Amino acid sequence: MKLRFTKMHGAGNDFVVIDGVRQRIDFTPGQWRRIADRHFGIGADQVLLVEPAPAGSDVDFRYRIFNADGGEVEQCGNGARCFVRFVVDQGLTAKRAIRVATMSGVIEPRLEADGRITVDMGPPAFEPARIPFDAAGLAPRPQGQDDTWPLAVDGATRWISVVSMGNPHAVQFVDDVDTAPVASEGPLIEHSPRFPARVNAGFAQPVPGGIRLRVWERGAGETLACGTGACAAAVAAIRRGLAISPVQVHTRGGLLSIAWDGGSVFMTGPAATVFEGEIDLAALPSPDSE
Amino acid sequence: MKLRFTKMHGAGNDFVVIDGVRQRIDFTPGQWRRIADRHFGIGADQVLLVEPAPAGSDVDFRYRIFNADGGEVEQCGNGARCFVRFVVDQGLTAKRAIRVATMSGVIEPRLEADGRITVDMGPPAFEPARIPFDAAGLAPRPQGQDDTWPLAVDGATRWISVVSMGNPHAVQFVDDVDTAPVASEGPLIEHSPRFPARVNAGFAQPVPGGIRLRVWERGAGETLACGTGACAAAVAAIRRGLAISPVQVHTRGGLLSIAWDGGSVFMTGPAATVFEGEIDLAALPSPDSE
Repeated sequence: MKLRFTKMHGAGNDFVVIDGVRQRIDFTPGQWRRIADRHFGIGADQVLLVEPAPAGSDVDFRYRIFNADGGEVEQCGNGARCFVRFVVDQGLTAKRAIRVATMSGVIEPRLEADGRITVDMGPPAFEPARIPFDAAGLAPRPQGQDDTWPLAVDGATRWISVVSMGNPHAVQFVDDVDTAPVASEGPLIEHSPRFPARVNAGFAQPVPGGIRLRVWERGAGETLACGTGACAAAVAAIRRGLAISPVQVHTRGGLLSIAWDGGSVFMTGPAATVFEGEIDLAALPSPDSE
Repeated sequence: MKLRFTKMHGAGNDFVVIDGVRQRIDFTPGQWRRIADRHFGIGADQVLLVEPAPAGSDVDFRYRIFNADGGEVEQCGNGARCFVRFVVDQGLTAKRAIRVATMSGVIEPRLEADGRITVDMGPPAFEPARIPFDAAGLAPRPQGQDDTWPLAVDGATRWISVVSMGNPHAVQFVDDVDTAPVASEGPLIEHSPRFPARVNAGFAQPVPGGIRLRVWERGAGETLACGTGACAAAVAAIRRGLAISPVQVHTRGGLLSIAWDGGSVFMTGPAATVFEGEIDLAALPSPDSE
C-alpha cells in the first residue's frame, strides 16, 4: 500500500504532512519514528497528521504532531502554519480562518492576503506549576514584569524565564546566539529534574526591533525555527523590557513576527510546500517489530 | 515545472536519485545544494544524477554525484548500488551487469540473485602521490603489508593508512568506534594540509570476521555508511593483518561485505527505494540568485 504525503516547512522547521482525512492512518511510534528518519525514511523535524473534526465538535479539523523520537507532542506554531497551507492547497476547506483541535487545545489560524499565516497561539502562562516547573527552594529575581529563575546547568547558574505556550519553555538571554551553548546545554536543560515534563530550551539575543533566537527542542534537538519557542522568547523579552510588541524574531530558518498585548500571542510567518511524495508502507517497520 | 525523483539508501547512506536520461538536467551548485538540504529541500547525503552514455562510448550510462555542499565528487560505492537498483526498477535497462562511466572511471556493478548489488570498485592505490598525500618529511612505520603514516591531529599523532579508491581515504584503527572522536577529529583530518584534495577519514575497530567502521566524509560530515570508505578500511585491515577477505564491514547503516585478493575490490551490499517524489523547480533557488 502506498501512502501519499507532502513535505513542507515553516521558516525551516520541516514537516511531513499526512492527510488523515481522506485515508485512515494509525501508525505505531516506531513507524512515526521511521517516517521522520532522515536516512531510512522521509525525514523531518516532525510529522503532522491532519484528521477530521471529532464528532460533535465545533472545529473544522484535528491535527496531531509526532516528534522525530516517535512520541506525540503538543502543538507547534510552525506546524499550525503548515497545516493551514496544506488544507487550503489540498482543497480540504474553503475557509481562510480554520478552527482546529490540537493536543493542547483549539486554535484558529488564518491565511493572510500576503500568503503568510497568523496563528492565535493562546495566552502564555508563567506560574511554575503551569509549565510544569519545580521551583521548590528557588528564589526568583524580578526583571521588568517577569520573574527569572536560577537554573543549575552543569555547575553554572542560568537565569531563565519559564513560559508555557501549551508546551513548556525555558528562555535565557545571551549576548550572542551564534556562540550560545545550544548543543551542549540544551539537552541538560531539557532533561533538568526541575522540568518533570522536560522542556524546550531557548537562547535569545536582543537586537533592534526584536530578538535573534535559537531553540533546543524537546525530543528533536536544535531546529531552525520553533514556533512556540519564538512566542515564548518574544513574550519573555517583552516582560523583561527587552523588546516591544510586535517582536521580530530572527531564526536561522526565517523571520517570525510575534504580537502580544497581555492576552493571546499572535504569530505570523511563512509556510511552504517543498515536494509531494508517495511511500510504500512496506518501507516502514511493521508494528510487530516494535 | 515539476521534477520527479527517487529517494534511496544504500546501508543508510541516502541519495536523491534523478533520471537525467529521460529529462535534461542542468543545475547550478546552489540548486544541487538546495536539493540535498534536509530542511528546505528534499534532503540527502548526496544527489545522484543518472545520464545517458557519452556518445561513442562502450558504457550503458554515466552518473554524476553531488555532495551536500553542492560540489561534484568522485564515485561512491553506495551510490553505485543505488544506481543499479534505480535503472533496473525504472526499466532503463534489462541488463543485470551494467557498465557506467563515473567521474573516477568506468565501473560495472551487478545485481545479484539475492537482491544485493556487487560493485567492482577497482584496485586500491597506496602510493602517497596517488592519494594525494604529502608525505614529505614523514617516516612510515611498516605494519603487515602496509605502511602506516604519522599524521599530526590537534597536537596528537594518529597512525593512518592512506588508500585511494578513486577518492582519498585516511584510515585509523581504534579500540572502540563508538567513542572514537569522529566529529572532532574528522574535520581536522579532512582539512589537513597533508591532503591537498582533502580526504575521507575512517575510524575502524577490528571484530571477529571483520571490522566496525565510522567515516567522516569529505564535504558531507559523518554518514551512516560510506562505500569507498568501507573498501579502504577493509583493504587497510587486510594489509595490516587485522582481517581476512571477505571482510564484513559493520556500519551504523548496515552490513557491507568487502572482498579483495590484491586486484579489484568487490563490495556487496543492499540498496533500497524509500519513496518517490515530485518537486516544483520553483522551490529551488534560481541560477540568477547564485
